[in-house]
Amino acid sequence: MTVNRRFLLARRPHGAPVPEDFSFVEQKVPDAPEGGFVVRNCYASLDPAQRGWMDDAPSYMPPIPLGDPVRATTVGVITASKSSDFAVGDWVLGMNGLEDYSVNEAGGFTMKVDPSIADSPSRFLSAMGAVGLTAYFGLIDVAKPQPGETLLVSGAAGAVGSAVGQIGKIMGARVIGIAGGAEKCRRLTQDYGFDVAIDYKGKSVDQLAAEIRAAAPGGVNVIFENVGGDVFDAELLNLAKHARIVLCGLISEYNSPTKIGVRNMWQVLAQQATIYGYLIMDYAPRFAEGGAVMAEWMAQGKLRIDEDVQTGLENAYPAFMRLFSGANTGKLVLKIADGL
Amino acid sequence: MTVNRRFLLARRPHGAPVPEDFSFVEQKVPDAPEGGFVVRNCYASLDPAQRGWMDDAPSYMPPIPLGDPVRATTVGVITASKSSDFAVGDWVLGMNGLEDYSVNEAGGFTMKVDPSIADSPSRFLSAMGAVGLTAYFGLIDVAKPQPGETLLVSGAAGAVGSAVGQIGKIMGARVIGIAGGAEKCRRLTQDYGFDVAIDYKGKSVDQLAAEIRAAAPGGVNVIFENVGGDVFDAELLNLAKHARIVLCGLISEYNSPTKIGVRNMWQVLAQQATIYGYLIMDYAPRFAEGGAVMAEWMAQGKLRIDEDVQTGLENAYPAFMRLFSGANTGKLVLKIADGL
Repeated sequence: MTVNRRFLLARRPHGAPVPEDFSFVEQKVPDAPEGGFVVRNCYASLDPAQRGWMDDAPSYMPPIPLGDPVRATTVGVITASKSSDFAVGDWVLGMNGLEDYSVNEAGGFTMKVDPSIADSPSRFLSAMGAVGLTAYFGLIDVAKPQPGETLLVSGAAGAVGSAVGQIGKIMGARVIGIAGGAEKCRRLTQDYGFDVAIDYKGKSVDQLAAEIRAAAPGGVNVIFENVGGDVFDAELLNLAKHARIVLCGLISEYNSPTKIGVRNMWQVLAQQATIYGYLIMDYAPRFAEGGAVMAEWMAQGKLRIDEDVQTGLENAYPAFMRLFSGANTGKLVLKIADGL
Repeated sequence: MTVNRRFLLARRPHGAPVPEDFSFVEQKVPDAPEGGFVVRNCYASLDPAQRGWMDDAPSYMPPIPLGDPVRATTVGVITASKSSDFAVGDWVLGMNGLEDYSVNEAGGFTMKVDPSIADSPSRFLSAMGAVGLTAYFGLIDVAKPQPGETLLVSGAAGAVGSAVGQIGKIMGARVIGIAGGAEKCRRLTQDYGFDVAIDYKGKSVDQLAAEIRAAAPGGVNVIFENVGGDVFDAELLNLAKHARIVLCGLISEYNSPTKIGVRNMWQVLAQQATIYGYLIMDYAPRFAEGGAVMAEWMAQGKLRIDEDVQTGLENAYPAFMRLFSGANTGKLVLKIADGL
């Protein structure tokens, strides 16, 4: 293959991204820079966080420059190298873009992975990647649910949420999940072992709050928040004293030009709760440690991490939008190519 | 005096309290219950938290029952006792009501105070009471500003805020205060030693955020939040990485039937900040410890705690409303009677 297809950010989306916010171009495959290498992207992670990077707003990463490919974590194989640390044929995981080939400058964030330990390279973007480890460290290191405590997860049928619920069960918590629709709620209790599933669709904040209250009359000790907006407001009406809230995502707000915001913040004060703004990035030095535990739990049948693999770089836009329509069932991954 | 004048909650306010939400009645002075006592209230604390107790919403205390006097922390002297622990003539601090005489049942929250150590009994409601100690423990125990860090205080000219700023300076932080109007801002820098004062009045979230950015180009490490709404949203656009936020109050939201909410919650995630919902109640066992430090700082001239003393139980309503109009200059206290 001598052509590099690239899915570029053409303009900053206003609200929900539309196809015109992107462009699809073909360029020649780049050469390896001095000290760096070129990676053939095989699988790309599609994540809500990418929507945030498209905005020109202060964040933990600079905005994606207009005209650049949409930034994405990918797993792939090196096709050209002028690096003494990385050789042609090495499999690597790193922050690249939605394109066939990405240039990695010397010293960029890239780590080697061993595809022989996984049934698919995509596992390094799901269970053993940022998604699975977001769930792992968010519970193990931040919220620390104790046996018998109640853990409430929003976006529970999503990639992170379903892992959070299962790890919460392993840790001995009672786990309540909030998801949209009967089929997702069925998966929570039947596929992922949640104790209770609550469907938020079509319910007011007060109605949803009442359902949470019925499921957790003593209040919730830990919230793992992926959604924000009305769902978060309903949850906040059910805090146990000294509740811990892992703020992992606010997906309901990302495409909304006018934010709903958090209107029940008073409850955080009244219940002396703590909200931890949480990103997985700081845990990169501990990925191997967490990945080993996740792999063991999976091997023991205690943990099931589903993937929703969409195929073809040309399908990047509809694949990405599955995140916001709620269509994805498991960690959303875009397959760009087989290995070499 | 044989009459007990009582300022009752007649109905739950919708938005800003109006005079018709209250009633003023006279009853006969109550007798001491078995094991309890009657206190002649001399000074009552008027606090934003009282507005929250008037609502029928989940909180850290039950709502004030309709027909009961408005709950208030008071300092006073015992006039009748059937308790073996409290004698007639003892000065006490406790949760009572806006009334001349309050009944204290056996085992209720009441502590003896020694008025000889203060120039006025009202000090037990300001510097050496919940207000001063809210500032003290919120910094010393929760936010822990380090020398050279930037501390941002909203409601900075208020009773808690002005103490927070001064204690922050004692701890070696650079202190920025946000207040409403030129006179309050003058007090921040001239009377309380803040490094920078920012007037929020008439400014959009973006304008206020830009002023904070100019005063703290590297971001703020600690926020002591008393206000909420637009002010909090502007602050959140200026978080340093791993910022700590003490959520002490949301006064801009208390009288608002439709909450503005917190719309920049994403920044808490992006900067991996922590929000601590904070109430002073849990620190009651450490009041003596904190009060001693506060008294020493005041004696050394390092700390100035102003009081706004309004007089007369019959003025309870207009006095209380000074909290929300921004009219109060220092800790708002209602003087009900001299000592005996």
